[in-house]
Amino acid sequence: MPYTPPEPSTRAAMIERVKFNADGLIAAIAQQHDTGEVLMIAWMNAEALRETLLSGRVCYYSRSRKKLWRKGETSGQVQHLHEARLDCDRDAVLVLVDQKGVACHTGRRSCFYNALRPEGIVEITQPEIAAETLYGKG
Amino acid sequence: MPYTPPEPSTRAAMIERVKFNADGLIAAIAQQHDTGEVLMIAWMNAEALRETLLSGRVCYYSRSRKKLWRKGETSGQVQHLHEARLDCDRDAVLVLVDQKGVACHTGRRSCFYNALRPEGIVEITQPEIAAETLYGKG
Repeated sequence: MPYTPPEPSTRAAMIERVKFNADGLIAAIAQQHDTGEVLMIAWMNAEALRETLLSGRVCYYSRSRKKLWRKGETSGQVQHLHEARLDCDRDAVLVLVDQKGVACHTGRRSCFYNALRPEGIVEITQPEIAAETLYGKG
Repeated sequence: MPYTPPEPSTRAAMIERVKFNADGLIAAIAQQHDTGEVLMIAWMNAEALRETLLSGRVCYYSRSRKKLWRKGETSGQVQHLHEARLDCDRDAVLVLVDQKGVACHTGRRSCFYNALRPEGIVEITQPEIAAETLYGKG
């Protein structure tokens, strides 16, 4: 089912309900919509959430680069939005997505690959794509 | 499979690898281990993570109450740990759990029940347990 964006006034009313923190951010968890795999966690500001809801492509806010982070803009590994859901406190958002390729900058499908096992930290997946393929050699 | 805690020295080495933020916290996402349902997001400090890994019952840190929050201590809605996984930056943890009853303080299974739909914010689930049953009438 293709994503249908809310009308601008509806979208504005939604964003009005969100409780951004003191830095103007909410935590955003990305989950593959059909398999349930948790892919990553990042942050959104109001502008990133607005763009995500409008475009149907997930946009975060990069705290390190201090600007919008259109997921996949450099790497091509975009996230198509199926549905966004706020939690009970309205200070976190779960984005159900269709992840093209891999979510993690290491080339793994999910960022959560370091399992805390009885024997220690175990990397449970290996990169599917080399980082230089994702981001170029430059 | 019952949860097997790491030895104290292994556990200490794991916690040493975690990148807690300036407030000494990491984001913790709880996911039902078999269905893949994302239940909630909260925070852990080093002590909460240590207790979680030792006890096999999920313990968060409550930022509002400024103390450990042993999930289910009051409500009985405990989270049995299956596995904890750090992300690539080691500043977030995914806890795969077996959630007894409901995760959300509203009595819903998951906290992420406010869907951002074209027509507006839609509550996609209803409480399964009344809040007064969870927390008493006091």
